[in-house]
Amino acid sequence: MRVDLGGTLAPTAGPGLSPDALEALDGEVAAAHERIAAGRRDDAFGYAALNLPERVDLEALRAVTDRFEAPAAVLTVGIGGSALGALTITDALGGDPSHHALDNVDPARTRALLEALPLEETVVHVVSRSGTTAETLATFLVVRDAMGQAGVDWTTRTVVTTGATGPLRRLADEHDLPTLSVPSGVPGRFSALSAVGLVPAAIQGLDLEGLLAGARSVADGLTGSLFDCPAYAYGAAAVALEREGAAVHVTMPYAEGLERFAEWFAQLWAESLGKDGRGQVPARALGATDQHSQLQRYRAGPADVLVGFVRPRERDPLPIPDPGVEELAYLEGVTLGELLDAELEATAASLAEAGRPHLLVEVDRLDAFGLGELLLGMEAATVLAGELLEVNAFDQPAVEWGKRAARELLAGESTPTTRAVAHRPRRWVPEE
Amino acid sequence: MRVDLGGTLAPTAGPGLSPDALEALDGEVAAAHERIAAGRRDDAFGYAALNLPERVDLEALRAVTDRFEAPAAVLTVGIGGSALGALTITDALGGDPSHHALDNVDPARTRALLEALPLEETVVHVVSRSGTTAETLATFLVVRDAMGQAGVDWTTRTVVTTGATGPLRRLADEHDLPTLSVPSGVPGRFSALSAVGLVPAAIQGLDLEGLLAGARSVADGLTGSLFDCPAYAYGAAAVALEREGAAVHVTMPYAEGLERFAEWFAQLWAESLGKDGRGQVPARALGATDQHSQLQRYRAGPADVLVGFVRPRERDPLPIPDPGVEELAYLEGVTLGELLDAELEATAASLAEAGRPHLLVEVDRLDAFGLGELLLGMEAATVLAGELLEVNAFDQPAVEWGKRAARELLAGESTPTTRAVAHRPRRWVPEE
Repeated sequence: MRVDLGGTLAPTAGPGLSPDALEALDGEVAAAHERIAAGRRDDAFGYAALNLPERVDLEALRAVTDRFEAPAAVLTVGIGGSALGALTITDALGGDPSHHALDNVDPARTRALLEALPLEETVVHVVSRSGTTAETLATFLVVRDAMGQAGVDWTTRTVVTTGATGPLRRLADEHDLPTLSVPSGVPGRFSALSAVGLVPAAIQGLDLEGLLAGARSVADGLTGSLFDCPAYAYGAAAVALEREGAAVHVTMPYAEGLERFAEWFAQLWAESLGKDGRGQVPARALGATDQHSQLQRYRAGPADVLVGFVRPRERDPLPIPDPGVEELAYLEGVTLGELLDAELEATAASLAEAGRPHLLVEVDRLDAFGLGELLLGMEAATVLAGELLEVNAFDQPAVEWGKRAARELLAGESTPTTRAVAHRPRRWVPEE
Repeated sequence: MRVDLGGTLAPTAGPGLSPDALEALDGEVAAAHERIAAGRRDDAFGYAALNLPERVDLEALRAVTDRFEAPAAVLTVGIGGSALGALTITDALGGDPSHHALDNVDPARTRALLEALPLEETVVHVVSRSGTTAETLATFLVVRDAMGQAGVDWTTRTVVTTGATGPLRRLADEHDLPTLSVPSGVPGRFSALSAVGLVPAAIQGLDLEGLLAGARSVADGLTGSLFDCPAYAYGAAAVALEREGAAVHVTMPYAEGLERFAEWFAQLWAESLGKDGRGQVPARALGATDQHSQLQRYRAGPADVLVGFVRPRERDPLPIPDPGVEELAYLEGVTLGELLDAELEATAASLAEAGRPHLLVEVDRLDAFGLGELLLGMEAATVLAGELLEVNAFDQPAVEWGKRAARELLAGESTPTTRAVAHRPRRWVPEE
């Protein structure tokens, strides 16, 4: 993994980083790295995520997944960090069997997917640390019911990943289901490189060793200077630009296989850093498609956006056939990937020309190793950013209020929370 | 369509709108509506988009699409506004045949999709106003080549939607292809309710009359006061909050069928308003999934986010089976849709409790009529916002620089633009 800081440098970029600012930032990084290294040594809560590549037990994982011979589909039932990592990995690398997720409680989508899947040939992976997540458990009840109605013995086709206690653990024990544990000390959004994220990839037969090797190469390379460490360079530059007014952090991969990666990173960045009045709003974009869309605002609106590009250096060499018309002569002898890369170069330059900051992350190829680098690299960037912003990157207090309110609403309770919901101001147009 | 402004009102929300601010805003809306109504009367550039529901020629459209009997798939080849509207409609309403898009130039994705599609049973819809869009033409050349290699006569399975002149029009004439016209006076991002967005929906046999009726009901209801007109209420409140510091505009539908709608709206908002140092950055989220992700930042980060919720009032009544465990007793007798709605109520209240502004858009059902209301409603909101911000909502100057640069790079030319690309600052970590 490499990171190009060129697009963040003043005076080209504004907000931008001067040489002095970079040096001062490097001093902050050195101090933060000491804290991160100590956290990893102690396997302290959250920091333990950076140790997952060397801790995860692939043998135990495969002992569970190998029992399923050639399923037609894998269905993840989980929400947020319990689904996004798994989807990110199979979207970037995956093939057969197809991997789907029910990571929401939309009835129309749930019904449609359950009608489309061959349930007798589907492996269901249900993931919840607490075993009480409302959306996940409600969906799993619906899925189990659908399997029953289809005449499928759900106990033979369900894998559970959960914590040491709770209803899901009890259910797994009761029915003797194959069960894996969520890693201790690792928040859900940092758990892609554990059973939480790896079960569907294992069933697809993906190169998990390569994925972990890529991640380990980044984890092993975390040093006390942003000038040596691409992951820290990324996180530190983003924080420095946030301080200078870049309130929005766009992730814009130039590779469709990384569209879900941008979504995964958005969760990581928002939930880890968006607290105490700090943190950038993550936004997801996709190159080249969003050049014809979001780019207008990034380049010509207020100067409050940092764009993070991501790309593989090598691509499938798919040639563009001879267009045979003068207006398109410039496409002659060009591959589709060269066109995509030219668009990235042009877009980066167009931001630079307008003084708008950007970062560029590159891996050699979008293979298991490269994806492992990206996952661990962005996790390390996020942990570093938490240190520099002086926020706890490993909690998510603001999501708890709404969870409790939803539970109490459905239970029909009258609590301060449900009264707040009832008395929220309304002003309908047109009036009701 | 209804809009609830309650979540934008001060003092609950901050930034928020006081009664006086709302009255003053209503005066601005009245003046803006005069300009919009005049623009519609003259079919002036851009404003003509709001007349599409009564102008579009479904007979001509169906004369083209009816010739394809029971295809297995429809493939849209187009980028930005040439694909997003069509995808939005079929994602929200669609069924068979499946609708796919190549709206990028990623070689891996392009190859994988062309290998997966039954090309002999696929209808290809290629869309480019100018007929010279690099990504679209390059992709179409690749698709045509793949059809040839599969022994398919591409001329019998290709529909072209383009402008009056250009290479795509010439190609269509040469091979006598069924051809539709992009609507004149309507920018691509506003063209969902024309041949550009409707061809795949027509091939799927969707209720186009219902879609246009929903759109027309909104277009006919545009009046000079935000207190009577939900679309204007939405656009005006968003602009007023932007002026108060809400730099980010999140669209968060509580309906998975509207995930693409949020992407469509992001293009509309960014490309129409992000100019002259103005405009909000659009970001896409999905309820309830992103409660476990982005919400942390929206509620607890800086107060710079406006969240726009969208939901249908009626949902598929899919019951949650009896959980049978105490921790989940509150789910007993609840439907999946009721859980989703409780989550929305709770999330809106959790933002209100933290003083963060939000808007809520509702339609009766996510059917053709409701989607038509949403599409035209958000277009009208965007046009109004352009008037209030005093920007030209119908151009996109900032995307042109990069397009030219990419073209000149591939042609190997040395121009001021390509020299700017070559001399963009680089600072690799680690050093190369």
